[in-house]
Amino acid sequence: YGKNTIKFLRLHREGKKHFVKEVEVCTHLRLTSAQEYLEGNNSIVIPTDTIKNIVLVLAKKNGIPSLEQFAMDICNHFMTTFCQVAYVKTYIQEVPWQRLHENGVPHIHSFIFVPDGIRFCEAEQCRNGPLVVFAGIKDLKLMKTTQSGFEGFYKNEHTTLPERHDRILCGELFCKWSYGECKDFDFDCIWYMNKIRECILEAFSGPPDCGQYSPSYQKTVNCIQMLVLSKVPQVQVIEVVLNNTFYNVLDMKNLGLTNDKEVLIPVEAPHGSCACTLGRKQFFEA
Amino acid sequence: YGKNTIKFLRLHREGKKHFVKEVEVCTHLRLTSAQEYLEGNNSIVIPTDTIKNIVLVLAKKNGIPSLEQFAMDICNHFMTTFCQVAYVKTYIQEVPWQRLHENGVPHIHSFIFVPDGIRFCEAEQCRNGPLVVFAGIKDLKLMKTTQSGFEGFYKNEHTTLPERHDRILCGELFCKWSYGECKDFDFDCIWYMNKIRECILEAFSGPPDCGQYSPSYQKTVNCIQMLVLSKVPQVQVIEVVLNNTFYNVLDMKNLGLTNDKEVLIPVEAPHGSCACTLGRKQFFEA
Amino acid sequence: YGKNTIKFLRLHREGKKHFVKEVEVCTHLRLTSAQEYLEGNNSIVIPTDTIKNIVLVLAKKNGIPSLEQFAMDICNHFMTTFCQVAYVKTYIQEVPWQRLHENGVPHIHSFIFVPDGIRFCEAEQCRNGPLVVFAGIKDLKLMKTTQSGFEGFYKNEHTTLPERHDRILCGELFCKWSYGECKDFDFDCIWYMNKIRECILEAFSGPPDCGQYSPSYQKTVNCIQMLVLSKVPQVQVIEVVLNNTFYNVLDMKNLGLTNDKEVLIPVEAPHGSCACTLGRKQFFEA
Amino acid sequence: YGKNTIKFLRLHREGKKHFVKEVEVCTHLRLTSAQEYLEGNNSIVIPTDTIKNIVLVLAKKNGIPSLEQFAMDICNHFMTTFCQVAYVKTYIQEVPWQRLHENGVPHIHSFIFVPDGIRFCEAEQCRNGPLVVFAGIKDLKLMKTTQSGFEGFYKNEHTTLPERHDRILCGELFCKWSYGECKDFDFDCIWYMNKIRECILEAFSGPPDCGQYSPSYQKTVNCIQMLVLSKVPQVQVIEVVLNNTFYNVLDMKNLGLTNDKEVLIPVEAPHGSCACTLGRKQFFEA
Repeated sequence: YGKNTIKFLRLHREGKKHFVKEVEVCTHLRLTSAQEYLEGNNSIVIPTDTIKNIVLVLAKKNGIPSLEQFAMDICNHFMTTFCQVAYVKTYIQEVPWQRLHENGVPHIHSFIFVPDGIRFCEAEQCRNGPLVVFAGIKDLKLMKTTQSGFEGFYKNEHTTLPERHDRILCGELFCKWSYGECKDFDFDCIWYMNKIRECILEAFSGPPDCGQYSPSYQKTVNCIQMLVLSKVPQVQVIEVVLNNTFYNVLDMKNLGLTNDKEVLIPVEAPHGSCACTLGRKQFFEA
Repeated sequence: YGKNTIKFLRLHREGKKHFVKEVEVCTHLRLTSAQEYLEGNNSIVIPTDTIKNIVLVLAKKNGIPSLEQFAMDICNHFMTTFCQVAYVKTYIQEVPWQRLHENGVPHIHSFIFVPDGIRFCEAEQCRNGPLVVFAGIKDLKLMKTTQSGFEGFYKNEHTTLPERHDRILCGELFCKWSYGECKDFDFDCIWYMNKIRECILEAFSGPPDCGQYSPSYQKTVNCIQMLVLSKVPQVQVIEVVLNNTFYNVLDMKNLGLTNDKEVLIPVEAPHGSCACTLGRKQFFEA
Repeated sequence: YGKNTIKFLRLHREGKKHFVKEVEVCTHLRLTSAQEYLEGNNSIVIPTDTIKNIVLVLAKKNGIPSLEQFAMDICNHFMTTFCQVAYVKTYIQEVPWQRLHENGVPHIHSFIFVPDGIRFCEAEQCRNGPLVVFAGIKDLKLMKTTQSGFEGFYKNEHTTLPERHDRILCGELFCKWSYGECKDFDFDCIWYMNKIRECILEAFSGPPDCGQYSPSYQKTVNCIQMLVLSKVPQVQVIEVVLNNTFYNVLDMKNLGLTNDKEVLIPVEAPHGSCACTLGRKQFFEA
Repeated sequence: YGKNTIKFLRLHREGKKHFVKEVEVCTHLRLTSAQEYLEGNNSIVIPTDTIKNIVLVLAKKNGIPSLEQFAMDICNHFMTTFCQVAYVKTYIQEVPWQRLHENGVPHIHSFIFVPDGIRFCEAEQCRNGPLVVFAGIKDLKLMKTTQSGFEGFYKNEHTTLPERHDRILCGELFCKWSYGECKDFDFDCIWYMNKIRECILEAFSGPPDCGQYSPSYQKTVNCIQMLVLSKVPQVQVIEVVLNNTFYNVLDMKNLGLTNDKEVLIPVEAPHGSCACTLGRKQFFEA
């Protein structure tokens, strides 16, 4: 049980310059006994209202140095404060506020909402177990209008899809990776120094002047995983899900026109989905 | 990988009387090799477009006798047709069309959309493993305006929640149960004969003339599980998640009024959540 | 300016029996001067927080006898209390809680959320003008699987739609009518006595044993309007919008099957829309 | 009646460089007669399917030079082709794809979805009337963490809001302006040359090094209107709606802490709303 979508803004000021971190936190606990379920005995139950208060108090006291550090702080607090907690998990996602710029000059206290991929993290711990930290990005929608195809696939009497070597590849990415058992990482430093987001975009798109051919969604997913694993040594395992939107080249023959991939109709349902988890060992074997 | 949200309507006619079943199907496969991820070799890949075609062909040929039977048909088809499939999972949810009635008379071909709880099911199978079937109901929102409290819980310096013995209990239920390894069940018969939906409503509400006191969300979740397990012998394990909306009694003192639980404000975020999975063995022990 | 989505639950008790009315209220004002826009002078501005308080105080004091009466109470309060208010409009929609029944017996304090059409109303008044009241129902989704066609329409070189005399008609209805300048109406009585909802369903569906042929969405919209105007003398003008979802009979020839309108695919975008407003005068002329 | 959410992507290629314009189009017509409503006579009805075809054919033939030009092309086509059309309105909104950049280098065929404000336009025409064009931006969410207050407002017994001279101002902007009766405008040129979006951001935020004090949402709305009208001579009238989210400074006294505007809770419902339409004449008078 736990509390979902605890939303708040943590405002930090350095002189006249303001920094904002707005987050949604979900914290879930499992207790050492199930007596509240079986007998309605609440004596060891920490109310979800108290869970919310603790999250807000920690935000006030420690600030949010990084999403990951804050998730670890919350897990640590519950494990060290409450002996009746057998397991704790905290998920945090960030509201994508970006500092406004006017003619290239950053504004000291104005921000704009830019949801081009949402950063999130997760920390979890069992009593007597390690604290494990995950991070990721979701709702990242990308499109490439060529350098994508799908050929040589398995065919039988139910196959109606034609082979194509030039199609649009468009999809929403969910990427989540594990930092393994956590040492003293500076998570935002890893994110920015290793340019994780840039890695993902680059693996999807290929070089800016020519792109890179994708023979399938599966291969594109694998490329993203391989590049992140090779560029970010702290990442142990990476899961990528690509929910793709198919763009159908409209047949305009009955309207007397030849449509040379100029007008395409997005097909939102059904959509394909392709998921893969890749770890270090598997990586070196491959 | 697979195909999500394959939406279609299966229309069945008996004379002038029409029967509709509109569903959303998601079918996912895992293949015996990962060469399409690692090498971009698509030779054993069944396109998601073919997956969609197969689902639609099965619907046309077999109809949808019940959601569960249709999910099993799909899994069976993939396992028996494609030797490269190592695992198949199919999720189906129903669009809640109900037959219209005029002055109590059922209409032969008119329907109304009534989303008061969505039925769904899931079937999954590994090669050489059993076909396992789950069923459930989700998005079922219930409220009781009294006979609910929360007292005697654990308190410390972060506790600000007062004890209450008369509060509103309101939440959205997700219930999912397993029928175990499947024999020749008539699933719709189990659903209707055992009145599973009615069980859930009754366990939540208590007797119509007086209700039944709930000492916590956890206990209510447990009551639902216990009643379903006791009334429906085919159910092996049941998971219930209750996402509750808190209704705050508005303090109107500064407006010169005494609010005797007459005006309440729903608090949508954050919301509490409480989940539990209960199986037969645990049931008899309890 | 104003306050949107003021959400609250009004609980009314008669002995042990509870009655709930949960609503969302939006109240907007226009003031007699625009000095707050032009000069930033707030001296006559009623804060939206005060608007919210007033709505809640009225709910506490008067209860919600009907949505329409409550909307009128709010408008009256603003007009009589604040001379700087030039115009007030209040929109209210109801959260669709229905009393639970167990084996036909109504439960004294348990409710279920059944969103099969949302009731709403609107009241508006200019200073020195009449108080005008509207009511309606929205998000009402209906389907008939036959007795619908579309033939004899205008054709040119851009027409690819075939004529059809047997198609599925499925759509979401928005109906809003005016009660004109308001006298002392008992609005819930009008709603229930005249069976407005039943009128709409009946005009859409036709008789339960055979239905009624619809030659177009437009004609169905008109039928609904005509029936409501003829059955409910208090209604002055009625607007109906029908947003229809097209169900495409899937061509399965390339899969070796003949699909006799058994498998249909809903096309959610684009969707057709058809709106019409019909008043008494026009009605009698027609 | 008409067709809503006609979604398509128009792909334009210049050598290896690709340009995408994905849009949603809604086109509505009113015919010169209402016989299809009253008599079910469809002989002058242009099917919504034909409307869709025409939009797609125009996109194929003309491309989408700008949203506004494309909306005008559609209106012109219906007015000149069909004498039974009495009125036509076309609304278009853009799917916010932006070209990807790698280390500052633009990618030739890869794009990212960045919904930080959605551009839209509207064109409408009555037979024998002028073609009027509107343009706008919606879903633009902005926040400033200081330089905002609300003081000196009207107070009575229902006022509980304290005066504040330092609060967070956060809201979603909807801006729509009219270009009046349309001459041969190059609409994208007006948009980019006059930096309309930048105008709105600047009027909201003030100078980057210090901001500008906002005494009310109303005054901020007015500032945006005044700046756009003064910087963009082609704009005749501008409507701005600001739906604001209130950020509540959490009282942490009962948790033993002093919260100096460091932890704030967003209040999503109810939210205030403030709308104003300002034209040239009013502008000069002000």
